[in-house]
Amino acid sequence: MKKKPLELLLLPELREMIEAGSFEELRDFCEEVHPAVVAELMSGLSGEEVWKVLRNVGPQLRADIFSHLGKKLQIEIARTLRRDEFAGLLTDMSSDDRADLFKQIPKSLREAVLPALAKAEREDIRRLAAYQEGTAGAVMSSDYATLAPHLTSYQAIERLREVAPDKETIYYAYVVDESRKLLGFVSLKDLILAKRDDKVEDIMNREVIFARVDDDQEEAARKIQKYDLLALPVVNSEDALVGIVTYDDVHDVIEDEATEDFHRFGAVPHDTAHPELQNIRDARVLTMVKTRLPWLLALVFVNIFSGAGIAHYEKTITAVVSLVFFLPLLIGSGGNAGSQSATLMIRALAVGDVKLSDWFRLVTREVSVALGIGVVMAGAVYAIGVVRAGPEVAVVVAVVMVATVLFGSLLGMSLPFLLTRLKLDPATASAPLIASIADIGGVIIYFSIATWFLLR
Amino acid sequence: MKKKPLELLLLPELREMIEAGSFEELRDFCEEVHPAVVAELMSGLSGEEVWKVLRNVGPQLRADIFSHLGKKLQIEIARTLRRDEFAGLLTDMSSDDRADLFKQIPKSLREAVLPALAKAEREDIRRLAAYQEGTAGAVMSSDYATLAPHLTSYQAIERLREVAPDKETIYYAYVVDESRKLLGFVSLKDLILAKRDDKVEDIMNREVIFARVDDDQEEAARKIQKYDLLALPVVNSEDALVGIVTYDDVHDVIEDEATEDFHRFGAVPHDTAHPELQNIRDARVLTMVKTRLPWLLALVFVNIFSGAGIAHYEKTITAVVSLVFFLPLLIGSGGNAGSQSATLMIRALAVGDVKLSDWFRLVTREVSVALGIGVVMAGAVYAIGVVRAGPEVAVVVAVVMVATVLFGSLLGMSLPFLLTRLKLDPATASAPLIASIADIGGVIIYFSIATWFLLR
Repeated sequence: MKKKPLELLLLPELREMIEAGSFEELRDFCEEVHPAVVAELMSGLSGEEVWKVLRNVGPQLRADIFSHLGKKLQIEIARTLRRDEFAGLLTDMSSDDRADLFKQIPKSLREAVLPALAKAEREDIRRLAAYQEGTAGAVMSSDYATLAPHLTSYQAIERLREVAPDKETIYYAYVVDESRKLLGFVSLKDLILAKRDDKVEDIMNREVIFARVDDDQEEAARKIQKYDLLALPVVNSEDALVGIVTYDDVHDVIEDEATEDFHRFGAVPHDTAHPELQNIRDARVLTMVKTRLPWLLALVFVNIFSGAGIAHYEKTITAVVSLVFFLPLLIGSGGNAGSQSATLMIRALAVGDVKLSDWFRLVTREVSVALGIGVVMAGAVYAIGVVRAGPEVAVVVAVVMVATVLFGSLLGMSLPFLLTRLKLDPATASAPLIASIADIGGVIIYFSIATWFLLR
Repeated sequence: MKKKPLELLLLPELREMIEAGSFEELRDFCEEVHPAVVAELMSGLSGEEVWKVLRNVGPQLRADIFSHLGKKLQIEIARTLRRDEFAGLLTDMSSDDRADLFKQIPKSLREAVLPALAKAEREDIRRLAAYQEGTAGAVMSSDYATLAPHLTSYQAIERLREVAPDKETIYYAYVVDESRKLLGFVSLKDLILAKRDDKVEDIMNREVIFARVDDDQEEAARKIQKYDLLALPVVNSEDALVGIVTYDDVHDVIEDEATEDFHRFGAVPHDTAHPELQNIRDARVLTMVKTRLPWLLALVFVNIFSGAGIAHYEKTITAVVSLVFFLPLLIGSGGNAGSQSATLMIRALAVGDVKLSDWFRLVTREVSVALGIGVVMAGAVYAIGVVRAGPEVAVVVAVVMVATVLFGSLLGMSLPFLLTRLKLDPATASAPLIASIADIGGVIIYFSIATWFLLR
């Protein structure tokens, strides 16, 4: 009978193996399947169960699988470990992953484990954990390879071979002087293509693209993306090399930034200082309420103006009650057109397809687009208007449709530019905010035109 | 006098150099500054001007800088070139970049240049351009390195050294048999760490993670991200290796997918079949109108129901006109709460933080969150209500606020799940759609409660 391939193992079977104490089988599973897959499967286990599996594999692989687990499970495991077990695990983890974890475990756990770590690791963790969230320093790793400038390419490759197991990458190596000042970089490809005796300083690239520790993580990620790098060196205020940000960090940064914009656009504040909110699945009720309330209350305030607008035209409404029938449709269309324009602009500004200086040119086009859309929509509501409330109201409704779509579109496209100009995130121009402002404009446009045309 | 660093060159100076015919200086600039920077600066030039610069640099660098230019400028340049110049340029470009360009140039240009290409390039372009947009085949490159299984690690490194200039990466090499069937892969790191005489087949990883040509590009990108790969091999229906997707493609895919979701959520259809729309800055008016209209018209249809709801309660409105004052505020809050919930869910579903099976658990939490939010908001509108319309209306308004926030939140969080269940993009639950549906619910809730309570 053919055995089932290990990567198709399911959670119940895994649990069975743990309960039966089949530790050899479990070790085989961990060794033969990719750590990311092992971690994914084990995400359904308790912290204690996971540790029963991990205890039986080699320290490096153990740290590797552990790093792929979710933060919540990592912390749960950390709590159950003996101090020396946890210290060993931290020592084997890559420097950026362990600094991340360290920042999120309870203070008591941090204080308990620190003395159990070797001095080098202790200082490395302290140093990396000190950088502010969202900076290049906070995402960088200190496991990078360095070379002295006077080495030959042969010696350099030998050196990289030696340090390979502890380094995040050996495909890029950084050339530094005695004070760790960054002189240049060489790729392993450069070294392989060079002659045996070529000196590192002669083949290295001197025009190094780098980031500073307090640069925004997005800026660092954009550099990696723009220059197609595998890693970006990070220097401190003394120009000394202190870490690297690698290409795989970029994936996370791009995704985080996209999430941030997405949330903002949906009127959910996105606070990098509160990472617990980024895990929506497990966020607590009170946290969710606190996060969502401020914008909702602010929008109530904005909506009061629409209400006041309606109240102001009470006489018109009482005279022609059928106008109210068209109210949601007209003010809604302005807001919807505005959401569309804002969506396009916010995203284009975020990925750099559009710049602040493009505003004027784009406004001109937006007017044409909005008029085009408005006229078609006006045709549609005119037809409804004639059937529902007669030709007089239909004319008003059609004209108002063009005007509100134009108003909403210009609002939606300009607000993100204005916010960028004010150094705010353009995505703060959320769909609900635009809809609410468009409502105010729509109410005023609608009832003032209706009053003028129908109550002359 | 110190010369200005070349990377700080500005557009007017560049133009001056082109007009003065300082081709040697221009070549220095191209050679010393990163191709991405050269391309960025030249994006302000006309196609003809760019070519005047590029004509004077080596063919490989020329193709490299050209690949970093925007598609529009690339096409503009292609139009001005002689057939053999364009063919030469295409030959020097990386296989994925040139297939991309080829798909976007006018048919006449395609037909003109094809006969001028060598057979190998011609077939490569045809093959790559044939894959459907959005698949792994459409983003892959055919410039990957392969190794025969019987080579020693020393021979393998020698072989990689030889082919390095033409390959996208030599850090991963794929081990294939005579029919190009994928047997395994080795990294350059594995080869460097191995003994000179170790056979490739003994050190290679046999558990290769791969994609198929017709897999979704997002799926391929997620694999690279999940397994921290530099490149992912792509095989055809005969399991033969035909290309690789590299880590830098992932950046673009993640960004594209985020843009797609963002647009959908703002009710802008995102059609990968119309790439001209992805360049918002230069999209034509008619294209924009055609893209934006369908959703706006569909939403008009939805909004008619709100209007009908209001018309249905005409008697209530005429009796207590002050109710209309609170209408935008109440139905708006339902929509806003719904947008927030939808935002959180859509993004969490997109990045995989939440799964379809989490729905029930999350609904339970959402009820608590919405009640918490609703009660605070009710307090706020009750106060406004008492001042504006007396205690009776205030009670109605407060109760309705809780109900609409609850309705909107549940709608906003459930719709993305429902769409996912129906195999549709959850982001189709756009903020305007949710706002419009929440409006209908809000109108009915508001006026039915008001009628029952105030007109008893």
